[in-house]
Amino acid sequence: MAQKPSIPKGTRDFSPEEVAKRNYIFNCIQTEFKRFGFQPIETPSFENSSTLMGKYGDEGDRLIFKILNSGDFLKKADKDALTENDSIKLTSSISEKALRYDLTVPFARYVVQHQNEIEFPFKRYQMQPVWRADRPQKGRFREFYQCDADVVGSNSLWQEVEFIQLYDSVFNSLGLEGVTIKINNRKVLSGFAEVIGEQDKLIDFTVALDKLDKIGEEGVKKEMREKGISEEALQKIQPIFNLKGSFAEKIQGLSSILKGSETGQKGIQELEFIQNAIQEMPLKTAKLDLDVTLARGLNYYTGAIFEVSAPEKVKMGSIGGGGRYDDLTGIFGLKDMSGIGISFGLDRIYLVLEELELFPATVTENTKVLFINFGEKEALYAMKTVEKLRGENITAEIYPDAAKMGKQMKYADKRQIPYVVLAGEEEMNNQKYTLKHMKSGEQSSLDFAGLKSKLSS
Amino acid sequence: MAQKPSIPKGTRDFSPEEVAKRNYIFNCIQTEFKRFGFQPIETPSFENSSTLMGKYGDEGDRLIFKILNSGDFLKKADKDALTENDSIKLTSSISEKALRYDLTVPFARYVVQHQNEIEFPFKRYQMQPVWRADRPQKGRFREFYQCDADVVGSNSLWQEVEFIQLYDSVFNSLGLEGVTIKINNRKVLSGFAEVIGEQDKLIDFTVALDKLDKIGEEGVKKEMREKGISEEALQKIQPIFNLKGSFAEKIQGLSSILKGSETGQKGIQELEFIQNAIQEMPLKTAKLDLDVTLARGLNYYTGAIFEVSAPEKVKMGSIGGGGRYDDLTGIFGLKDMSGIGISFGLDRIYLVLEELELFPATVTENTKVLFINFGEKEALYAMKTVEKLRGENITAEIYPDAAKMGKQMKYADKRQIPYVVLAGEEEMNNQKYTLKHMKSGEQSSLDFAGLKSKLSS
Repeated sequence: MAQKPSIPKGTRDFSPEEVAKRNYIFNCIQTEFKRFGFQPIETPSFENSSTLMGKYGDEGDRLIFKILNSGDFLKKADKDALTENDSIKLTSSISEKALRYDLTVPFARYVVQHQNEIEFPFKRYQMQPVWRADRPQKGRFREFYQCDADVVGSNSLWQEVEFIQLYDSVFNSLGLEGVTIKINNRKVLSGFAEVIGEQDKLIDFTVALDKLDKIGEEGVKKEMREKGISEEALQKIQPIFNLKGSFAEKIQGLSSILKGSETGQKGIQELEFIQNAIQEMPLKTAKLDLDVTLARGLNYYTGAIFEVSAPEKVKMGSIGGGGRYDDLTGIFGLKDMSGIGISFGLDRIYLVLEELELFPATVTENTKVLFINFGEKEALYAMKTVEKLRGENITAEIYPDAAKMGKQMKYADKRQIPYVVLAGEEEMNNQKYTLKHMKSGEQSSLDFAGLKSKLSS
Repeated sequence: MAQKPSIPKGTRDFSPEEVAKRNYIFNCIQTEFKRFGFQPIETPSFENSSTLMGKYGDEGDRLIFKILNSGDFLKKADKDALTENDSIKLTSSISEKALRYDLTVPFARYVVQHQNEIEFPFKRYQMQPVWRADRPQKGRFREFYQCDADVVGSNSLWQEVEFIQLYDSVFNSLGLEGVTIKINNRKVLSGFAEVIGEQDKLIDFTVALDKLDKIGEEGVKKEMREKGISEEALQKIQPIFNLKGSFAEKIQGLSSILKGSETGQKGIQELEFIQNAIQEMPLKTAKLDLDVTLARGLNYYTGAIFEVSAPEKVKMGSIGGGGRYDDLTGIFGLKDMSGIGISFGLDRIYLVLEELELFPATVTENTKVLFINFGEKEALYAMKTVEKLRGENITAEIYPDAAKMGKQMKYADKRQIPYVVLAGEEEMNNQKYTLKHMKSGEQSSLDFAGLKSKLSS
């Protein structure tokens, strides 16, 4: 029976053009990763469920795709769960494996499992798909790539500096100007909570503050009030909303706000170190900015927090993010491994490059010349030439069938192949080729050397 | 709680060295795919179960990894199957998606779904992982990559010729000499069954014949007898076992065996066309051989059948295979689309290159120079230089901490970084660098231009 073919919602097919453009971004990122001394690893698409479950919160657990055990999985099924009709309780007894939810937890697992083979500090990059059973919507997919670079095994601030340079280098190499790398520090956020006397509400406080962009100052305060943060505290944080100006000016403002907090002061020192280094080594195209409202995965980060914004003229969320986490591998039993990492949002970068028309035309170039097929004898002559051209690193094809000329020309046109070669009996006898430029219609009669030289340019 | 980390059986972590070597193979294959005019597509890791189930036989259905529905999956579960404790019956009601089992069925689905956007003949390549719940064993994994190139939309025999050239080009570019590309034709096999009067036993017959290499002539005959093939038929096929010599000699022998079969004669003509073309355009390194016992996925192929053997000195099964199939897209409702394709066995090619030591040393090269960290001021001097070197496309790193010299040198050594730079106060004052070659211990004092030139070579 013929089925009407479709793919699961939230997943995508990529056409040749899309693959070419995606690979262009991957290659730019990978080239910089390598240039900065990061080494690639790859981990399996599915992990033991115990590796993933409980690492991303309850919501995360729900969004992890579980793989059904093979064979007679009901034999080991939890009978109570079946009787009670409890899907969640049943899951662990009929599913032992789950699809990767991000690259960070598998990386932590990798580091712990292979710690004796690894030379620390370990600079690794990883570019692989991840899967989330999220509700699909515009720009949110159930399968998407993550491109991560991390270092574990050192808490040197030079790494923060280097990751900023890495972001700058990648966006520079993609020709994307006007990117802002926003930085904050978890210790500054902790300092805020400390000086307003609301340490126990740190998460609520920062989650609300993180929304300043979206809901404005009054919205943030309203949310804080709802979370039980006192009016007195709200008054104390008022200067946070007034931080303006250059990086240095904001640092100055911060210093005064965080005077009473040792943790906060430590955060400021870290920010200053980074800012000084970047001033000594100016970025190529990106701009570094201090954003004290930036929180991201707060439970996770312990020092620097990064987020990258697309150029202002493009409406787009963040196109990258990351930060320092002090105990990532602890969940797998390896303590005191400081780590720091950043991620590139491939799908959003794609949309930004598309909107700004920044993909080089060469990216989607494919076959340079199509040989028209006039029949068996001519095809052999063509094939021999095609083979020689390929040997010269020129992408050449022959139309496989001696179809009508119009059909073959249409194929060249639709495939956007810039040249066709017409070689019939006369050309064969003279060891020549009639080369036609598709766009201009211009034709020339060439020998192989001429053909090669024309197609190489 | 700390967990002892591990990965599911049949899956693998890849270390930086392994990723580099695998990427080397991927790149060689991809470069040739492109040069031959193939275009990349990518399909989702999981498909709707209905797309995959029933396409690979019962055994295949069992080996497909199924993804458990998200949320309260028991709500829609088949109550009868639950009562009867019937895992297989239950599956389709609690799992709607499944991991890709190969790249061919998703490709067929893609072609049918996107037929209006595609210009035929469509030459596509695809390099993505597939998953099979097979029992893991040496060289057999539950997650592995396939590298496929296919054309649909033409039945021109030039394509068979081109795929042989493609195999040859890839193995030539990998520096792998002594590869044999074995070819057969389904029509020849059908012809055999016809002339011995056992058309209805074609599959049993060819499955047995395919084992000649492993179980020898007597073994093959024994199996045929067990499958009910008559003694008379066995006598008639005796000449098959006696086919020897060159491609042309075997063709001659075949002609006499298949005199009475029109289908068989058609198969011979196809083989001759291909052989003639390859004689006109000799292969670079591989050898083309006729192997009339070759059957592979017989139900599937309708014309040419390919299989590639590693060089004889390496004990290894086939490292590639493929063939022509006349109605792949029919299962999804698009009739009369002839296709032909080949596949490269990445994991086995990896093992062969490893055994023959054919990976170029440059493949696993990474960081070229490590700057020793002597403290904050020196580190800034180093970082500035590192940044400039990276701008010159030289992979450079700084050790992130001002750790003991010995520790930093050990890091360079273990990472196989060939050079270190020592730049302390004296070097800084003179704008110089002390470059040390790790292996020889040789040291030189250089300015930036000297450093760059030394590290570029």
